[in-house]
Amino acid sequence: MSTAFNLTLSCKDRPGIVAGVSGALFAHGANILEAQQYSDIETDRFFLRIGFEHARRLDGADPLTAALADVAAKFDMDWRLRPAAQKKRVLMLVSKLGHCLGDLLYRNRIGEMNMDVVGIVSNHPKGSQKLTLIGDTPYHHFPITKETKAQQEAQIKAVVDETGAELVVLARYMQILSPEFAAHLAGRCINIHHSFLPGFKGARPYHQAHERGVKMIGATAHFVTSDLDEGPIIAQDVEQISHADTPDDLVRKGRDIERRVLARAVHYFLQDRVFINGAKTVVFPD
Amino acid sequence: MSTAFNLTLSCKDRPGIVAGVSGALFAHGANILEAQQYSDIETDRFFLRIGFEHARRLDGADPLTAALADVAAKFDMDWRLRPAAQKKRVLMLVSKLGHCLGDLLYRNRIGEMNMDVVGIVSNHPKGSQKLTLIGDTPYHHFPITKETKAQQEAQIKAVVDETGAELVVLARYMQILSPEFAAHLAGRCINIHHSFLPGFKGARPYHQAHERGVKMIGATAHFVTSDLDEGPIIAQDVEQISHADTPDDLVRKGRDIERRVLARAVHYFLQDRVFINGAKTVVFPD
Amino acid sequence: MSTAFNLTLSCKDRPGIVAGVSGALFAHGANILEAQQYSDIETDRFFLRIGFEHARRLDGADPLTAALADVAAKFDMDWRLRPAAQKKRVLMLVSKLGHCLGDLLYRNRIGEMNMDVVGIVSNHPKGSQKLTLIGDTPYHHFPITKETKAQQEAQIKAVVDETGAELVVLARYMQILSPEFAAHLAGRCINIHHSFLPGFKGARPYHQAHERGVKMIGATAHFVTSDLDEGPIIAQDVEQISHADTPDDLVRKGRDIERRVLARAVHYFLQDRVFINGAKTVVFPD
Amino acid sequence: MSTAFNLTLSCKDRPGIVAGVSGALFAHGANILEAQQYSDIETDRFFLRIGFEHARRLDGADPLTAALADVAAKFDMDWRLRPAAQKKRVLMLVSKLGHCLGDLLYRNRIGEMNMDVVGIVSNHPKGSQKLTLIGDTPYHHFPITKETKAQQEAQIKAVVDETGAELVVLARYMQILSPEFAAHLAGRCINIHHSFLPGFKGARPYHQAHERGVKMIGATAHFVTSDLDEGPIIAQDVEQISHADTPDDLVRKGRDIERRVLARAVHYFLQDRVFINGAKTVVFPD
Repeated sequence: MSTAFNLTLSCKDRPGIVAGVSGALFAHGANILEAQQYSDIETDRFFLRIGFEHARRLDGADPLTAALADVAAKFDMDWRLRPAAQKKRVLMLVSKLGHCLGDLLYRNRIGEMNMDVVGIVSNHPKGSQKLTLIGDTPYHHFPITKETKAQQEAQIKAVVDETGAELVVLARYMQILSPEFAAHLAGRCINIHHSFLPGFKGARPYHQAHERGVKMIGATAHFVTSDLDEGPIIAQDVEQISHADTPDDLVRKGRDIERRVLARAVHYFLQDRVFINGAKTVVFPD
Repeated sequence: MSTAFNLTLSCKDRPGIVAGVSGALFAHGANILEAQQYSDIETDRFFLRIGFEHARRLDGADPLTAALADVAAKFDMDWRLRPAAQKKRVLMLVSKLGHCLGDLLYRNRIGEMNMDVVGIVSNHPKGSQKLTLIGDTPYHHFPITKETKAQQEAQIKAVVDETGAELVVLARYMQILSPEFAAHLAGRCINIHHSFLPGFKGARPYHQAHERGVKMIGATAHFVTSDLDEGPIIAQDVEQISHADTPDDLVRKGRDIERRVLARAVHYFLQDRVFINGAKTVVFPD
Repeated sequence: MSTAFNLTLSCKDRPGIVAGVSGALFAHGANILEAQQYSDIETDRFFLRIGFEHARRLDGADPLTAALADVAAKFDMDWRLRPAAQKKRVLMLVSKLGHCLGDLLYRNRIGEMNMDVVGIVSNHPKGSQKLTLIGDTPYHHFPITKETKAQQEAQIKAVVDETGAELVVLARYMQILSPEFAAHLAGRCINIHHSFLPGFKGARPYHQAHERGVKMIGATAHFVTSDLDEGPIIAQDVEQISHADTPDDLVRKGRDIERRVLARAVHYFLQDRVFINGAKTVVFPD
Repeated sequence: MSTAFNLTLSCKDRPGIVAGVSGALFAHGANILEAQQYSDIETDRFFLRIGFEHARRLDGADPLTAALADVAAKFDMDWRLRPAAQKKRVLMLVSKLGHCLGDLLYRNRIGEMNMDVVGIVSNHPKGSQKLTLIGDTPYHHFPITKETKAQQEAQIKAVVDETGAELVVLARYMQILSPEFAAHLAGRCINIHHSFLPGFKGARPYHQAHERGVKMIGATAHFVTSDLDEGPIIAQDVEQISHADTPDDLVRKGRDIERRVLARAVHYFLQDRVFINGAKTVVFPD
């Protein structure tokens, strides 16, 4: 019985990284299943994801772990080794529109997403959700006003800390995070924006799209940063529309795009396939 | 032997338009082949395109033409009746990158586009083009500098007037038309912009897209107005890209999108399928 | 307060149909909102869908209804007049895989689908479904074996008759209907097949696709006929895959395609946008 | 000044391949630019493509070449080392429809394809081609009848041998190669089939698609084998169509799909990105 692992790392690009890592893996009995790498000549960073299997469980004292740590130290790597089957803890934030949340919950229920949903936070009460999949997932109703924004974010932060959430998903959560809170969640908070960024930033993008008369609409999943709608993009998709589509039609058609784009981004994150590279991402698709 | 015609019209939306037009057509022996219509509740305009066939050639004195003119007067219509097989006269403007022009010329050569290319205008000499399809199409080399822009546009205008061009296509023509010239060509000048507008307006959109880290790139065909990159959009399309694509890769992949989007827009225009509706278009696809 | 109606009709193609119908509508005070038509030169059939609004409720004795009946009789039309807001009664059939059913139920819950789900029939018990959206929708568990197929279909038929279901959706119902039952449901039963027909008919299409090494997979929504996987196609869509996708990956990626293709087909049906034309369909998109 | 190389290899999957190859590259001063790999658990084959740069030109006697040969021998690899800039020699076969050939020639002219077109073979005379890009590329007119098929293929084979063609492209060449000739060209002959295989094999696929009433059409680029339309698939794409499209419309819309699918497949082949894996391919996209 072997166990599958994901090894992910990034470092300054230099010769010998692959040789060093693959040599260590081979020397200690690992069997590489898949590998993807990317050298960014602009940032001079190197990114690597290796899926491998091993007969041992690879705790911290394992010779393989030690050998990888040596290579990592030599190349000054950011690196992580993780059992592929280990679920990530995910906290969902939602306002009123539940189609993205419901989609993620359903995918999780049928085993498609490698996550534990440790809670749902909303500025609206549970009873206002049209979702039945919430079940007994902890639901935190944290109302928010302009005056209570700081306190409300402190409430969310407390839930993040208590649950050990490794990912926070803004599944159509219509509040703008404060710069401080966005910074606190840097690299572990994904938002779905209902436009094909950088087009139609800000509010009511479908109405903007309708007004401009574009022939396609889209959605964008991105990491949240303090710079609104400017975070590193993880996934995007679009669909053809026509002059006859009303803003309501765009909202309806957009729901399908939003939920599949967000699901794709979350899926990639859960599988350790997403790296932040400055203001951009490196995504190794499956 | 019957002849096919395209009847296109727009007017203020009121009850009775379809009844009036279809009644006139039926009363005078026309056989409707296809019809598409659209009522815009925002602008309160009605748009109609009818393809029909008739045993007669329908000159201006024909009873059917007269009957249609009556209906048109009653509803204060902008209208046009045109034999479907009658080719439109098209003038091409191009700078150095010939992939869109070459694509249009090839499609025309194999009978796919219903047009007569009455000339090609460029700010670069014929010998600099990598195209062989130009053949003996009149090629006008009008160099341009900041100082001579007005004169150069006057030269182009003279060609438009002399050739009776009904459509001017900016097939990767990298000069910005003056507001006066853009106004002169209003409704009959189509540009291909190498981005998915409204994202990445202005210069070097593929480099902008690369810098922003988007996951899709696109192209937009639109009518030219004095407001740069803001004209009514006719067609758009996109393709998936990845972090590994360099700006040069985007330029290469973008060429394919540009030429098919421009070809689609021109094709629709040639088939009388495009209406201007304020800052937007109504497009009846085939 | 006006009411919106959908008028749909088909008949042998002849001059004067549009003039007759639009004349009757205009003469009796209807206001056309949208209209789409198609003349099939191969089958010589004409298809028309008109959305209009009227100040009256248009019962059978209404002068407009009578005028339309006259036109319909003159052209020997199949026709139907229906309030646009009137929900269709829909019966869902499902086996074990609930992603398509759950998707339709969710879309219905948020008001996206114009239907009343009058019941769910399955050859598996309610407790085996991973869906929470079923709520108190009547759930009929009709087990089936080779020996009891006729009786089981009689049970389903009884539910169809009792509920007055106007549409039966096979939402991943993995039983093949008998020719008699398929004939009984002709024109009102939509199936989702998990391949891009006509490729990979029959069982386990994703495994067939994997084995063949195609670079895209798809799904097909079609009317059920006695000729398995050969019914008139309503909607199709596909996605890119790669050599690295296992059959399980295809199943997962395919779920997304299946549910959006089926939802699109059902949506069109509910909006009176689908006509059967011999072995094919005419679909007027929104 | 360094030179870029593509190293491609496949062998039975075993631990240590990546470590061995990357170790040899690192030890002899190569700098890896990109790498893609795939382990097929069904065929138990491993596939690797590494792009690297080196200060030397790496002739056969180079220590790096020798080290790679050692690794290759140890793992019993099929392998090839090739300067990335070295153009492949390509022979084009075409019948009457020149859109795919013209597209490839144009892409080559503007520097998009890494190939030398060493000749064009057709069963129709040069004067019948609507292409102007042929220029002085050697054009071989080899007429064919049922009786002369063997001789004509011998003529083509002679051109292949004389020109040292590394790739033969059937760019809408409407003759079926004999099993012997197909076998002779195994792994180096790419055909474009104008359907989304495995749907609509054989003749007139657009007419078959029209008759079946599908809602999308496509094209497939595949290696030619003696089993008609069954060769390993390299690339596919599709587009939405509607009930209103005539077979002629499908032919027109299909041309766009055909030329971009064939161009993509040839581009991948020229960049050493395509491996044959039994009846399937492994394609490492750029």
